[in-house]
Amino acid sequence: MSTTEKRHHDPEKARHRRRQVLDAAAACFGRSGFHGASMAEISKAAGMSAGHIYNYFDSKDAIIAAFVEENVERVSALMRGFELKEDPLQALLDEVPRSVRDDLDPQTWILPLEITAEASRNPKIAAVARDADRRTRELFRVILKVGRQRHGLSVEDAVLDGRMNAIIAMFQGLPVRAVHNPDMDPDVLTESFRLALRALLFT
Amino acid sequence: MSTTEKRHHDPEKARHRRRQVLDAAAACFGRSGFHGASMAEISKAAGMSAGHIYNYFDSKDAIIAAFVEENVERVSALMRGFELKEDPLQALLDEVPRSVRDDLDPQTWILPLEITAEASRNPKIAAVARDADRRTRELFRVILKVGRQRHGLSVEDAVLDGRMNAIIAMFQGLPVRAVHNPDMDPDVLTESFRLALRALLFT
Repeated sequence: MSTTEKRHHDPEKARHRRRQVLDAAAACFGRSGFHGASMAEISKAAGMSAGHIYNYFDSKDAIIAAFVEENVERVSALMRGFELKEDPLQALLDEVPRSVRDDLDPQTWILPLEITAEASRNPKIAAVARDADRRTRELFRVILKVGRQRHGLSVEDAVLDGRMNAIIAMFQGLPVRAVHNPDMDPDVLTESFRLALRALLFT
Repeated sequence: MSTTEKRHHDPEKARHRRRQVLDAAAACFGRSGFHGASMAEISKAAGMSAGHIYNYFDSKDAIIAAFVEENVERVSALMRGFELKEDPLQALLDEVPRSVRDDLDPQTWILPLEITAEASRNPKIAAVARDADRRTRELFRVILKVGRQRHGLSVEDAVLDGRMNAIIAMFQGLPVRAVHNPDMDPDVLTESFRLALRALLFT
């Protein structure tokens, strides 16, 4: 996002500083929520002055936008990996154990929950989250289309849309599940996720 | 929850007042978030004095607990309905179109998102949400067990746990999905949800 990337003389140092701010912000949002955490609290946690933070991020909204962007990059890398495989659908299915385990890790899920709650009432954050979702879906759609074509399965728009959104719903529901039922066995859950995904991908 | 139900002389009037407060709180939480909404704001929206509100709810935590409890009652009624059916699994599957449509309605989802985000960092709310989840799972487990037995399918604990949590994850993921991709077609999504649920219920 152009709004979240300010220009700096020393890009390496700037990247390091941005990272410091993002780590501090993630801890503060996790502890106090997006609204509860102030820029002052974030700057204290990052060990820099509030003025210094504004060299990197204009606002808390810009920090959230940076988190969303990081997630797009993470998912994009995953999707490009699937695209290179001979059987992208099977590669997706093989990834389930790791995805389930990652999504059940509080380190992974606190921030997405906070971002979603904020996006549900803050139009700026909603716009950032929806743009990110659209770009991620475009990549996912290619994998699904190519993969299903190779298996001779329907690639109608409605089919691709439905399957894609159902699969993403399952994984976006995992952090919610982890909050409400923190004692789930990842292996047990993985078996059921694979079963549902197999149906969604291969039929 | 005993902590959320205060005793009153006129139960009917008290119920009506509680409803007024809950509706006002839902609107305020949706607009400002759990942290952003103050008891003063809620009392103003409910058209009563802050002191009057405390006759019904001790705190915002108690209001959230009441919402959680309402949801347990809603889900319990649904589960009891399934239990009475000859084929509870098929009844569950037949409910998918309505559940998908309900879960995509912003009126339905803003509050659960807010509660989940709050539960991820507030141990009191987490305890309330987890207790509610446990009670709901117990009811769901009975449906699943009875239903699968009638179809001669495995009712091992690990199978029941996995299927149950995967199904709940899909539905808890829907409000998250609706925030990130508000233009989904409920019918298209329903077809995919039925496909995944059929695999999770009947295999």
